[in-house]
Amino acid sequence: MTRRTKNILFIMCDQLRADHLSCYGHPKLHTPNIDGLARRGVLFENAYVQSPVCGPSRMSYYTGRYMHSHGVSWNFVPLKAGEMTLGDHLRPLGVKSVLIGKTHMRGDSSGMSRLGIDPESQIGVRIAECGFDPYERDDGIHPFSGHDPDPNYNRYLREQGFGGDNPWEEWANTVVDEDGNHRSGWYLKYSHLPARVPNEHSETPYTTRRAMDFMREAGDQPWVAHLSFIKPHWPYVVPKPYAGMYSPEDALPLVRSDEELANAHPVHAAMSRHRVSRRFAKPGVRDAVMVGYMGLVKQIDDEMGRLFAFMEERGLTDNTMIVFCADHGDFLGDHWLGDKELFHQPVIRTPLVIYDPDSRADATRGTRCPALVEAVDIAPTFLDVYGGTPLPHIMDGRSLRPWLFGQKPEAWREIVVSECDYAFQDARIELQTPPIDSWMRMAFDGRWKYVLCEGFRPMLFDLQSDPNELKDLGASTDPLHVQQRERLHEALFQWARRPRQRVTVSDELIESTEVQARITENGILIGYVDEDDLRAQRQQFKPRYASHNPLVKEALDRLTGEHASSPKPAGKSPVTSTTQPTEESLP
Amino acid sequence: MTRRTKNILFIMCDQLRADHLSCYGHPKLHTPNIDGLARRGVLFENAYVQSPVCGPSRMSYYTGRYMHSHGVSWNFVPLKAGEMTLGDHLRPLGVKSVLIGKTHMRGDSSGMSRLGIDPESQIGVRIAECGFDPYERDDGIHPFSGHDPDPNYNRYLREQGFGGDNPWEEWANTVVDEDGNHRSGWYLKYSHLPARVPNEHSETPYTTRRAMDFMREAGDQPWVAHLSFIKPHWPYVVPKPYAGMYSPEDALPLVRSDEELANAHPVHAAMSRHRVSRRFAKPGVRDAVMVGYMGLVKQIDDEMGRLFAFMEERGLTDNTMIVFCADHGDFLGDHWLGDKELFHQPVIRTPLVIYDPDSRADATRGTRCPALVEAVDIAPTFLDVYGGTPLPHIMDGRSLRPWLFGQKPEAWREIVVSECDYAFQDARIELQTPPIDSWMRMAFDGRWKYVLCEGFRPMLFDLQSDPNELKDLGASTDPLHVQQRERLHEALFQWARRPRQRVTVSDELIESTEVQARITENGILIGYVDEDDLRAQRQQFKPRYASHNPLVKEALDRLTGEHASSPKPAGKSPVTSTTQPTEESLP
Repeated sequence: MTRRTKNILFIMCDQLRADHLSCYGHPKLHTPNIDGLARRGVLFENAYVQSPVCGPSRMSYYTGRYMHSHGVSWNFVPLKAGEMTLGDHLRPLGVKSVLIGKTHMRGDSSGMSRLGIDPESQIGVRIAECGFDPYERDDGIHPFSGHDPDPNYNRYLREQGFGGDNPWEEWANTVVDEDGNHRSGWYLKYSHLPARVPNEHSETPYTTRRAMDFMREAGDQPWVAHLSFIKPHWPYVVPKPYAGMYSPEDALPLVRSDEELANAHPVHAAMSRHRVSRRFAKPGVRDAVMVGYMGLVKQIDDEMGRLFAFMEERGLTDNTMIVFCADHGDFLGDHWLGDKELFHQPVIRTPLVIYDPDSRADATRGTRCPALVEAVDIAPTFLDVYGGTPLPHIMDGRSLRPWLFGQKPEAWREIVVSECDYAFQDARIELQTPPIDSWMRMAFDGRWKYVLCEGFRPMLFDLQSDPNELKDLGASTDPLHVQQRERLHEALFQWARRPRQRVTVSDELIESTEVQARITENGILIGYVDEDDLRAQRQQFKPRYASHNPLVKEALDRLTGEHASSPKPAGKSPVTSTTQPTEESLP
Repeated sequence: MTRRTKNILFIMCDQLRADHLSCYGHPKLHTPNIDGLARRGVLFENAYVQSPVCGPSRMSYYTGRYMHSHGVSWNFVPLKAGEMTLGDHLRPLGVKSVLIGKTHMRGDSSGMSRLGIDPESQIGVRIAECGFDPYERDDGIHPFSGHDPDPNYNRYLREQGFGGDNPWEEWANTVVDEDGNHRSGWYLKYSHLPARVPNEHSETPYTTRRAMDFMREAGDQPWVAHLSFIKPHWPYVVPKPYAGMYSPEDALPLVRSDEELANAHPVHAAMSRHRVSRRFAKPGVRDAVMVGYMGLVKQIDDEMGRLFAFMEERGLTDNTMIVFCADHGDFLGDHWLGDKELFHQPVIRTPLVIYDPDSRADATRGTRCPALVEAVDIAPTFLDVYGGTPLPHIMDGRSLRPWLFGQKPEAWREIVVSECDYAFQDARIELQTPPIDSWMRMAFDGRWKYVLCEGFRPMLFDLQSDPNELKDLGASTDPLHVQQRERLHEALFQWARRPRQRVTVSDELIESTEVQARITENGILIGYVDEDDLRAQRQQFKPRYASHNPLVKEALDRLTGEHASSPKPAGKSPVTSTTQPTEESLP
């Protein structure tokens, strides 16, 4: 039987390091369900995110564009109204794109107001949700922030009898200490303690069930369901039995060195002085966090098991692509840092496993793909699944489907690029960097990792001789290091100058049209000496360019006659198209 | 009396070379009215456009952004819906921005449709007109192209008794030869012949009168009137007395050399094979064109005299800034080229004269400013006139007002950048350049001009030793030339990587806020070990960051107590702002 892909389940975890899955090598944390997905699909060993920050990274996943292209450089920066997202690209192909969980999107209310778009209208709601139709949205990292004072999950908890003004905070983000006291799960010290909420009602199982609800209710229309977990992101707390399932000894060893800190790049040094970094360096803090973090990952894997079984039972496995990924990782104390916002592997290398039911993907099941792939490749992959024309003038990424089918795409990228804007961090204040210069960029070719920091020396790491990235060679005078820095510097320039904003006209349209012939046949006569000249040139044009505009055609025919004479009255010319520019809309 | 500027008359000519005004040194073509404006204001000796093509150049004027930023890389490329233009920036300041003449704007009908914007609505019309409210639009370069089958000017001509299906074409674009035959003015060979239309009814006088109409009708509201002439752009024909007012001997000498053509860069060589370039190289063609072109410029100057006198009579000179500029120049056969689309001085250096009635500008009247200024500086200048907050996160340019007031702005730019996308030209087809690589970029520091061409060697000119740009040093191995190429290459990289798409959050907002303190006070507790840690940190925050959200404040106060206890019921949190992000909208 030939299988074809109809739906896509697009699963994203928040802040999940690749090395915390057993299929990516974790020795103690077994994730058999995600590993099983990898056995049925392809595991990408070198998948990188476009930014080590939630908002920018997600916008790159959803738009197929680098941070440099879409402009969302940090979490509260709205994606400008008009930027096209997955939903915009897939909707015309008959696909319904829904959101279940978190997007970290900030809607461009100012842009909508300027464009006269009602935020409550269907289009307004989509603009505020990265182009998805919301099925269930729970951003959830700031349950008392006033962004969404009463999210769905709060209502759910209340219905289950977990009362209070803010049950998410009081049950899911609150833990019970050894003396029975309630402690806030936001405090790192208490990360190892069990959340008050029973497991089945905690965030990940709840969101997974909402995805099942969606699949039950979905009709025949093809869908992309973005199942977006808020975990294992902080607060790093999980209910029993996951709390306490792991001990600090099960954690990966801390990766850092005194020499690294002593010779740190100014931006790295300033970030090591961020509160979260200093706290992770305190005795006991990392141990408590690792216990919670590993439990959260294990919980996700168990829920994946439940979800995949549910899909199997309903026959969805035969026609639904499953993508498992993360928006970025977490330092967890490595490199003297907490949280994220630099370019070390624990943060920018993320899990990416894709199961494609299509028969053509049988060739690669259970294999590991070493290609350098990026978050921006996801949107082009989905477009490819639905037979959409590639949009290289809009999307920076490329479809991964050839890799899934065992083909080697031509001229695949040789570097991955990731970007981080530390304008919103204390490091910028400490370093007195103007916001325009706080945008860092990394180019990594699989061995050499180069980071360009405005106003400072660059960073350079050789992951072959130094896989843990403890020796920053950014100031090294070794000719090899100088040469690598220069090479990747130039590669970043090539990357930076690629045109990314000519989004309203496609490369395909340009390449398929002899624009100059069309211009003449549309009546704009550039560079003709006289009647004979025009007559001779027109004979060389391909018939497809001949004007069909009655007003123009007669004028051109008249102009190539021996003498100009009065034209005959002609009908009205056709109305200009109101859709995506086509050849007809050329001048 | 202290004078203050209330209105702006923003005059743009199409395809006018700086060196075709007497104030810029033309020895035979006297333009006393524009020269007079320069005597009352400031003449910018080194003003450059962002692209040697109408559409991209204009979009840079109207948005204050480079082509790299706004994406309109050629004439029929729509400016994407959502890009902010002058009108968008000035409207909230109470200023009415109107268009009188040409914009070369292509509306983004696809984007409008996606965003649910009715093209006939006020917002839709503005999107299709670069943010201007149309008062009179006559793009006029293709009167029989079907874009606008019956423009206003056609209707006007008909009312004056110049009949026919397409009077613009039959009267203004048609000439009478020595034998009384009607010839199309599109043919270069006939450019010296007089247009059939009487002078007073030709395009430039008509458009000037429409500007006077607007000024008569304008009420008290401050206005920016974009008076945008379609001339001296081709068809290069003008009515009597301007036709025949000049002879070929009055023209500037042709600038080209055999050596230049023999050693031409591949893109230059391919462009020299464009039809328009080959035609300009034919005997007699340039002579005919120069006669028409000079007549058209003289006609503009005479109309400027009428217009300035009209304004003087009505007292408008006391409160109206007058900007005179052009969207780009014209090769007119120089460098073996016709039309435009490379970066030689005749094309990218343009006239810029600014008269500012403000008393502070008295210090500079009649002076010539040598600073490197760009088309992107115009929108920031206008914003400055109306007291708007500078928007460096949106606009690439800077206000020119300090120069007008005799001040030297800090850290003024050291290079100008211009860009050209030849994707739509026959040169791309001949050279088989992929559209993504057909984007050329120039960096010019006033002496050295460097042009980066993807896939080919660069170009380099030394305007000190070679002011006519006849020696391309792009392949020279002279160490000085190598060094200059490397220096400007790196300068272009700095330019290319500048963030330009984070348009929804201002630098000012970022710099004025300690984001991390706000995040805590909004209830996102990143990196706190325990209650004591949070309590101690909160005491260090400035009072302005203290949460006023009743839900958050109580939770934070409770979380810094000795033990967590049940929270009291609290009121609803405030609704999120729906306007431009402010400090309150931070997470």
